[in-house]
Amino acid sequence: MDYYWRDALHDALRRNRGDAHHRYFQLATVDEAGWPANRTVVFRGFSDDDQRLQVATDARSAKVAQLAAASRGEICWYFTRSREQFRIRGSIELHGTAGPGSAACSSLWNSMSEAARTQFFWPAPGAPLAETEAIAESNLPPSSFLLLELAPERVDHLQLRPDPQRRQVSALQQGTWHAQAVNP
Amino acid sequence: MDYYWRDALHDALRRNRGDAHHRYFQLATVDEAGWPANRTVVFRGFSDDDQRLQVATDARSAKVAQLAAASRGEICWYFTRSREQFRIRGSIELHGTAGPGSAACSSLWNSMSEAARTQFFWPAPGAPLAETEAIAESNLPPSSFLLLELAPERVDHLQLRPDPQRRQVSALQQGTWHAQAVNP
Repeated sequence: MDYYWRDALHDALRRNRGDAHHRYFQLATVDEAGWPANRTVVFRGFSDDDQRLQVATDARSAKVAQLAAASRGEICWYFTRSREQFRIRGSIELHGTAGPGSAACSSLWNSMSEAARTQFFWPAPGAPLAETEAIAESNLPPSSFLLLELAPERVDHLQLRPDPQRRQVSALQQGTWHAQAVNP
Repeated sequence: MDYYWRDALHDALRRNRGDAHHRYFQLATVDEAGWPANRTVVFRGFSDDDQRLQVATDARSAKVAQLAAASRGEICWYFTRSREQFRIRGSIELHGTAGPGSAACSSLWNSMSEAARTQFFWPAPGAPLAETEAIAESNLPPSSFLLLELAPERVDHLQLRPDPQRRQVSALQQGTWHAQAVNP
């Protein structure tokens, strides 16, 4: 069978682009106490080799501390127009503007709108209102700016529209993707 | 200050009801190996005392095994019309058609459409396609049908529309909710 989740995801992105929120997904992590944590983030594209999903994140956010303890995540991405869901599980790496991955980090910064950049200069997210300092604005990415990359290891793709519904689970085994049709 | 997350959530439900997906949210749990798991579920309402959020789930699904090991979840609920997010963390209980909670479980079943009920008679979700048996259809809830209830302990409410954005974190302490405004 020729099913490949990456083609299906590119397809979903294309078919849902008329929906203003089609690039929003939910990223789950595990916090230091073993509780699940879940928040909406914006998909910023794929890495140059098409292997990893990219998100911009704030070094001062709770998820960065959580990822230092357990660098694992699961994306839940529901497309409302095509009525399909991708659950994408994988290891997560963070890249700042220095060290390995800094070129990809700067490249993401350069691709972002001024509005999207602004929040990285705001006072620390989650801290009591206005008790922390804002960061001086500049065209360069501040130290708060990080590129988050998730490298998929398992993808669960559910399509609600066909009758019967379709569900494919793909797993990365020794560098090769294997897909299996399962019950929805 | 008079902010109360439950009022804000009821408000969001009302203001977003024109959106066909406003009752869908993402529920994160932690699996047996410590990985985060994340999936879209349908909000089925509040418990009679308004204290818990209800979801219907399949006893044969992976999340039920995960919850037996770690009965904790975080809901991420993004409302696209009003551009606000509720992150709702809490302990989770499951109720079947026998034992404590069975009345609430049956009441949820009775409130559900025939289309929503159908999937509980399908072969086991996640199992290889068609290798398991379907359950004989009936008007009574099958053993696969469970009521999942999440009792909130912490709620993080982010509003993207106002300028500046607003974020309130509420925590349940000794039976009383305390809210604090934090940086978005």
